[in-house]
Amino acid sequence: MSELPRSVNLAERLSQFSELWTQKKVADLNDYEVKLAKLKGEFVWHTHDETDELFLVISGRLTIQLRAGDVVLEPGELFVVPRGVEHCPVADEESAILLLEPAGTMNTGDAGGPMTKAAESLST
Amino acid sequence: MSELPRSVNLAERLSQFSELWTQKKVADLNDYEVKLAKLKGEFVWHTHDETDELFLVISGRLTIQLRAGDVVLEPGELFVVPRGVEHCPVADEESAILLLEPAGTMNTGDAGGPMTKAAESLST
Repeated sequence: MSELPRSVNLAERLSQFSELWTQKKVADLNDYEVKLAKLKGEFVWHTHDETDELFLVISGRLTIQLRAGDVVLEPGELFVVPRGVEHCPVADEESAILLLEPAGTMNTGDAGGPMTKAAESLST
Repeated sequence: MSELPRSVNLAERLSQFSELWTQKKVADLNDYEVKLAKLKGEFVWHTHDETDELFLVISGRLTIQLRAGDVVLEPGELFVVPRGVEHCPVADEESAILLLEPAGTMNTGDAGGPMTKAAESLST
């Protein structure tokens, strides 16, 4: 058996970085990645045609703008953006979230642009 | 577009049930399920040969016993049990957890027995 993964303390791992809009991988689940991110301000409207995307708010307050209306998430609340649904996260205050989606999912989906950034591993 | 899913407030959803060792589905993510459960006492040793399994502790304290040693999780801590690794959850006090794994994963894995129970949908 290969070495076991370590447990992940979300607050501790969040204290290890400060960059905004950069996804930090903290665990693998099959071919999915558990990632943390800090957000402030507005992201870009984009769509993931190939996958749903799970957002769980850890601190702050995240609004996921959808063309059908806003979904506002407080700490302890999660939302799954279905594949193919255009969305744009915005956080008025700095917020911390957990993301879960297949490995290789790009943060800006179909939109590309200057905020496009691959997820980074957060070293332990 | 089909109807959008609702956001999920974890505390609110946990208040909707009291049974122990019963997985309640609160969201779908592609072919994965996000489930909540309340635990107290010891489960059964079992293995999921076909999938990793994510545990995130929301309240209480969960020990995931592994043959290689115990992983103790406090609220805000997560652990991924790799596929093929035998494990047995135990909670000395009543604890609430979020689970994430592919739809159809049985709670007792290869072990079966009287605690085997399919996940149930938690109505909104």
